[in-house]
Amino acid sequence: MNKQVLLAQRPDGLPTKSTWIFQEVEIQEPKEGEVVIKQHYISLDPAMRGWMRDGKSYIEPVVVGDVMRAGTVGEVIKAHNHPKFKVGDFISGWGGVQQFTTTNAKGYHKIDPTIAPLPMYLGTMGMPGMTAYFGILKVGELKEGDIVLVSGAAGAVGSLVGQIAKIKGCRVVGIAGGKDKCDYLVNELGFDAAIDYKSENIYSGLKKHCPDGIDIFFDNVGGEILDAALLKLRMHARVVICGAISQYNVTEKPKGPGNYMSLLVNRATMKGMVVFDYAKQYDEAIIDYLQWMKDGKLKSNEDIYDGIENFHETFLRLFSGNKLGKLILKVLE
Amino acid sequence: MNKQVLLAQRPDGLPTKSTWIFQEVEIQEPKEGEVVIKQHYISLDPAMRGWMRDGKSYIEPVVVGDVMRAGTVGEVIKAHNHPKFKVGDFISGWGGVQQFTTTNAKGYHKIDPTIAPLPMYLGTMGMPGMTAYFGILKVGELKEGDIVLVSGAAGAVGSLVGQIAKIKGCRVVGIAGGKDKCDYLVNELGFDAAIDYKSENIYSGLKKHCPDGIDIFFDNVGGEILDAALLKLRMHARVVICGAISQYNVTEKPKGPGNYMSLLVNRATMKGMVVFDYAKQYDEAIIDYLQWMKDGKLKSNEDIYDGIENFHETFLRLFSGNKLGKLILKVLE
Repeated sequence: MNKQVLLAQRPDGLPTKSTWIFQEVEIQEPKEGEVVIKQHYISLDPAMRGWMRDGKSYIEPVVVGDVMRAGTVGEVIKAHNHPKFKVGDFISGWGGVQQFTTTNAKGYHKIDPTIAPLPMYLGTMGMPGMTAYFGILKVGELKEGDIVLVSGAAGAVGSLVGQIAKIKGCRVVGIAGGKDKCDYLVNELGFDAAIDYKSENIYSGLKKHCPDGIDIFFDNVGGEILDAALLKLRMHARVVICGAISQYNVTEKPKGPGNYMSLLVNRATMKGMVVFDYAKQYDEAIIDYLQWMKDGKLKSNEDIYDGIENFHETFLRLFSGNKLGKLILKVLE
Repeated sequence: MNKQVLLAQRPDGLPTKSTWIFQEVEIQEPKEGEVVIKQHYISLDPAMRGWMRDGKSYIEPVVVGDVMRAGTVGEVIKAHNHPKFKVGDFISGWGGVQQFTTTNAKGYHKIDPTIAPLPMYLGTMGMPGMTAYFGILKVGELKEGDIVLVSGAAGAVGSLVGQIAKIKGCRVVGIAGGKDKCDYLVNELGFDAAIDYKSENIYSGLKKHCPDGIDIFFDNVGGEILDAALLKLRMHARVVICGAISQYNVTEKPKGPGNYMSLLVNRATMKGMVVFDYAKQYDEAIIDYLQWMKDGKLKSNEDIYDGIENFHETFLRLFSGNKLGKLILKVLE
């Protein structure tokens, strides 16, 4: 049997239990050219909240009544003349929030669990890793010596952005919620400083830790943090808009950055990014990440919770911030 | 005697009569290396409102008690061993809101009233012209076939931006206040369409006139217009932040664009600009403007009011929109 989570209705604000339908169905047999994947891990990402919303975006919204979209890693347990994958292959793709996925596996790619542990293919070696790598290096146009500010710095993307910037010879300041996360950034990941937005006023934190301003702001958060960071831009600064987690569950209209005229004063640029645009260059990032991890220069942190039954509560950790690094749900051994 | 206008105090909101001190003083004699300029025309620009505000910007604020900063064109009537200018020269620079300026004339440049009428050196051949030219061509990275939206489209900068885009083979839609201005844009300046934000809902206006979205939004206005335009961005669109006149007199915090996540969805860029950065290339713009005007492809419109005594009321026309094209005050014959 296959336990799965469907989108029951589009939430207004934070998802609740009634946002989801939990159901158990028979595992679907593969047709010609299809495989059945036994999913081990499911990726929980802030972007999923966006996919639940109706309206134009960079990707189609999840249809109400469908299995909730999510990235997965799992093992092929059945294959019916599949052109690319065979039983025993580990593959990653958009398997959705379920234990077994029967699919033609278009868009999936093979992964090697002997090179990196399976969950890491949902984090550093997956979408968040690619987002961080191309976001800071290509979109942010990182240069040695830049002063880099990262919000959501203890998250899957932010923690990698900061570490890449350190590897490239920058000063890095992270913004995160809580003393533990801030200590982790400075003591474990080598950030130069961290601002705890839950206990510190963000404006005074920036004044203290970014006295000379910032060359790059990599934003995962939006809201007041984006607004405050804009006031610290140096000439020709770049603001990378990667996400806006603080605004994903607001029921009124999202808050815009009132200080955006700082872009004019400082001849600065605010750029949006979507990681899929860099798909052809993912290998480049993979090679660098593996080398950096081997050299002990970069740490990958996966925060793994257990059981598809706990999907709802675990998903909410994205928005409460009650997790560290990449949030993952283990669904089958 | 020299009539002049000083900044009496920094206004909270729209300037009032008490913002200014009108006074008459003796014309200051030139010292060694100085000239006395008899000013004919004074430029009235939205940017002046920004210079009246305290705090960090791209230029020092006007000091309370000083002559209000403004661009001017006038004639040298006295010179005391000036290295560059002699009596009879027409020169343009930051002469301020006064009839006579005694200065070392640093930053001034000579102008030729036989090539273009004097007031045009404050408009198309001056700062607004340079802003439009480099803003749309360099910052906006205009390409033939782009769909271009311009706010403040009947203003000094906006009217030129739209005309340049037409010359370069683009579809151009302007946003302006009132039927007369909109008719002027379409019938006189050759815009493809105009949206009257005073009588039309901006969202439905955009839906109607930009059904395929926009590649460039050149924004002089900010506020709700910026927010609405963000929803119409096409992939890789550019938003040029040139000004935010709707926000210059607000007493609360300026409104930020709540729809800024459209930058992410559309991999778009929002860029600030300050015209002074292009000072070395001004000649390039001058040559093009003269040729375009000679060829009948571009119209320069100066809206000229008379008398330094009317400075306050005339200045307010910038914010009421009660003017067309470049706003200029004639101060002496």
